[in-house]
Amino acid sequence: MQRKSFIGMNCSIARSLDQVGEWWSLLIVRECMQGSKRFDEFQNNLGIARNILTTRLEKLIEAQIIERFPLDDRANTDGYRLTQKGEELYPVLVALLQWGDRWLAVDGKPPLVLTEDETGDPIERITLHGKSGKPLSYRNIRFNPGPGATERTHMIIDRRNQRVLGKS
Amino acid sequence: MQRKSFIGMNCSIARSLDQVGEWWSLLIVRECMQGSKRFDEFQNNLGIARNILTTRLEKLIEAQIIERFPLDDRANTDGYRLTQKGEELYPVLVALLQWGDRWLAVDGKPPLVLTEDETGDPIERITLHGKSGKPLSYRNIRFNPGPGATERTHMIIDRRNQRVLGKS
Repeated sequence: MQRKSFIGMNCSIARSLDQVGEWWSLLIVRECMQGSKRFDEFQNNLGIARNILTTRLEKLIEAQIIERFPLDDRANTDGYRLTQKGEELYPVLVALLQWGDRWLAVDGKPPLVLTEDETGDPIERITLHGKSGKPLSYRNIRFNPGPGATERTHMIIDRRNQRVLGKS
Repeated sequence: MQRKSFIGMNCSIARSLDQVGEWWSLLIVRECMQGSKRFDEFQNNLGIARNILTTRLEKLIEAQIIERFPLDDRANTDGYRLTQKGEELYPVLVALLQWGDRWLAVDGKPPLVLTEDETGDPIERITLHGKSGKPLSYRNIRFNPGPGATERTHMIIDRRNQRVLGKS
């Protein structure tokens, strides 16, 4: 199914979703972060149809999130691994994980606990904050035009600050 | 199109994507965070077909991410706003925003800069860390079974730590 692209919106969230917002895409990235490398591993672990997996992998390769590499133990077969760009999606996945742990865990029991390998300390909950470290919600965050703002971006920002912060 | 649900996977990322991983869903949540309330506002700002918007809103309401509320200025018309569960998706959206700013901004120019309203300080880049504050990547994070781990979760964890950390 051809989808409307979000790329025309002057918004980094939309652009990100354009590359990883397809059904399955972030779970394929998750599989890479869990050490899967071979087509068959992705297929078995995800229970995804082969043709859909092929399409998704191609799109992720085109977006330079995943790259092919020669597998040591299998002549003539390539594996798949994350690029730097792909590895930097980790905070997105952990934010989804923490939200799921909090709101969707069966009987409130998270399946997984992430820790810092070196120290054994649990990974802290992702929070948004400025220099002061005070945790922020979207209600006390202000939008400002960045260097890539268009006239429309300015309009959206003004309306947004007015409505959410009660002032422009 | 009926999609395979991810809910059977014992994974909080999969469960989260099951609720917000549909094309459009996170952009509707973004719209709420930008102050949109009325069906027509979502529709105009997103350029989404009315029937798809209706379906997505219903699913988000069913998932208790969005709720209806009576609009002051429009008799007999409900608006839509985030619940607490929906508001807590903000770190997911900001993680996508920061990744998009870094990898997808046109000419490297982000459209938007987020600041702490009270101080004007820019929101810091989301990092993963334990108590020590040292930024972590998925390469130095360990998986451990949580209270909701199944036998299969244990298998995935062992394989993952072996492959990514080089030890179990």
